[in-house]
Amino acid sequence: MKKLINDPRAVVDESVEGFGLAHADLVTVSADPKYVTRKDAPVAGKVGLVSGGGSGHEPLHAGFVGRGMLDAAVPGAVFTSPTPDQIIPATLAVNSGAGVVHIVKNYTGDVLNFETAAEMAQAEGVEVRTVLVNDDVAVEDSLYTAGRRGVGGTVLVEKIAGAAAERGDDLDAVAAIGDRVNQNVRTMGVALSACTVPHAGSPSFDLEDNEIEIGIGIHGEPGRHKIAMENADGITNRLLEPILSDLGTASGEKVLLFVNGMGGTPLSELYIVYRRAAQILAERGIAVERSLVGNYITSLEMQGCSVSVLRLDDEMTALWDAPVHTPALRWGV
Amino acid sequence: MKKLINDPRAVVDESVEGFGLAHADLVTVSADPKYVTRKDAPVAGKVGLVSGGGSGHEPLHAGFVGRGMLDAAVPGAVFTSPTPDQIIPATLAVNSGAGVVHIVKNYTGDVLNFETAAEMAQAEGVEVRTVLVNDDVAVEDSLYTAGRRGVGGTVLVEKIAGAAAERGDDLDAVAAIGDRVNQNVRTMGVALSACTVPHAGSPSFDLEDNEIEIGIGIHGEPGRHKIAMENADGITNRLLEPILSDLGTASGEKVLLFVNGMGGTPLSELYIVYRRAAQILAERGIAVERSLVGNYITSLEMQGCSVSVLRLDDEMTALWDAPVHTPALRWGV
Repeated sequence: MKKLINDPRAVVDESVEGFGLAHADLVTVSADPKYVTRKDAPVAGKVGLVSGGGSGHEPLHAGFVGRGMLDAAVPGAVFTSPTPDQIIPATLAVNSGAGVVHIVKNYTGDVLNFETAAEMAQAEGVEVRTVLVNDDVAVEDSLYTAGRRGVGGTVLVEKIAGAAAERGDDLDAVAAIGDRVNQNVRTMGVALSACTVPHAGSPSFDLEDNEIEIGIGIHGEPGRHKIAMENADGITNRLLEPILSDLGTASGEKVLLFVNGMGGTPLSELYIVYRRAAQILAERGIAVERSLVGNYITSLEMQGCSVSVLRLDDEMTALWDAPVHTPALRWGV
Repeated sequence: MKKLINDPRAVVDESVEGFGLAHADLVTVSADPKYVTRKDAPVAGKVGLVSGGGSGHEPLHAGFVGRGMLDAAVPGAVFTSPTPDQIIPATLAVNSGAGVVHIVKNYTGDVLNFETAAEMAQAEGVEVRTVLVNDDVAVEDSLYTAGRRGVGGTVLVEKIAGAAAERGDDLDAVAAIGDRVNQNVRTMGVALSACTVPHAGSPSFDLEDNEIEIGIGIHGEPGRHKIAMENADGITNRLLEPILSDLGTASGEKVLLFVNGMGGTPLSELYIVYRRAAQILAERGIAVERSLVGNYITSLEMQGCSVSVLRLDDEMTALWDAPVHTPALRWGV
């Protein structure tokens, strides 16, 4: 294992510390319990947005803390859910009185711990709503999940619900738009290589030299099937088909197309995937109104990508376009 | 070789095509000869900025085309200089009459081809100035270079000179500020793994399982030495020492700290490097006024990073902060 780390057990501590130093103008880091808040939190009158999950998916979630997106992010150990004793103080810290929305990727540990934290925060008088993200069309149940996993769509939920909170929507409205994004987004991923959790020290799964895993999870958990390596167009076809069929897109619809890198794949390859995905959508008469290409929800140094398609309506498009100022996503400000 | 590509010889064509589709609001792609221009080029009265070089370093350079940065980027084949017959039309396309600045990384092929193109463009009546970037402190001469190589500092030259052009500086002034950035920036890189050029099909150099290369070039060309793997703090010490000693920074100075990923290293690890680099600067009484962390000048899927330190003055800081709207760098708009 070759990594730019010191003590494998200190990876999250040191990485979050460096993140806090690099973005001290935007965020405040609480070291223990560990969570990251927007520098000006709580924002008076605004619904607070909190997300979190295992580390190893950077920039998700801490990279999305800032104006127009999250108020707090709660990083767990690598590929391990954050605990209620982190989520509770993060929730309290961003509550201005308008309540807090938890955005939770559908993994059993995350769901349980956010649920516990929501109950405890509510006992302290904070109204909490939860948006569950489960956009992965690859598998119904997986190693860490009952039901579909939350993957790339999470970034889009956080951006759009974050913009709704920023414009002053109330608690139920912010949760509702988050749910609407989740209902209209589907994602599918592929791995060309495994990744190594620092404290484990060896790859989390095996892939032969000429083998890839279609429908991979963001923790390297199994997807649909391993197949022999194919070219980018063939792989992209395999990702798009189940996405579009599950989403039920029709000609004339407008979408956001998101090609996400898993961490170890060059940007140039993501654009080759984007090219084919855009061709497929064009062939079906679907208009790509917005796009996002880059490493936004990763799996350490895994090689591979995921593709997400979000069916847009005018309100979602406007909220997507609204100003955002976070370490990893920024425009309009 | 496992890559998200189709024909290895079509990688640049298809990647740039996908890039053009994803960012059609910002850029125009000329397929043959291949170059990318800002959508509204030429901008009346503004000095044009053109950069380019071998592909495989994305988002550099095409990702920096747009308002406040480059007017055109000229991508060569992977790790291969672009040719004059690409650079000339790109130069002509962005000339509004105010002249054009070429920003050229110091590699023999790039220098020759940009020089030829500059002469030809000048023969057609376009005034051209050249800013040569040679910020790499690792080696004096290398496999592809006489003198120091141009590496991470290029991104900072393009941003700051781009802002100067955008505010209306004339040709000589834009070239002068570009030179000033180059004179005040130093960079050093490290590779944990090699990378594979698609049409070559095998890694461009060898590293043992417990070996890293200090002072690596962005094409995998040799650096200072191979050493046994060390921890992140030790590696960061090795990168910072020659940078600061060569730059001659003194206590009380202000700098921009740029930790750049080589393409295959997780963002979380870049922040661990950032943390140690920030500690070193703090110990020396140097103030980090601005920061940049991410994959901005890469070497395909290479694992590793480079660190750049730019000595700031007030004008450079103001130009760094000026609005920029490109696919890979955006703020203030």
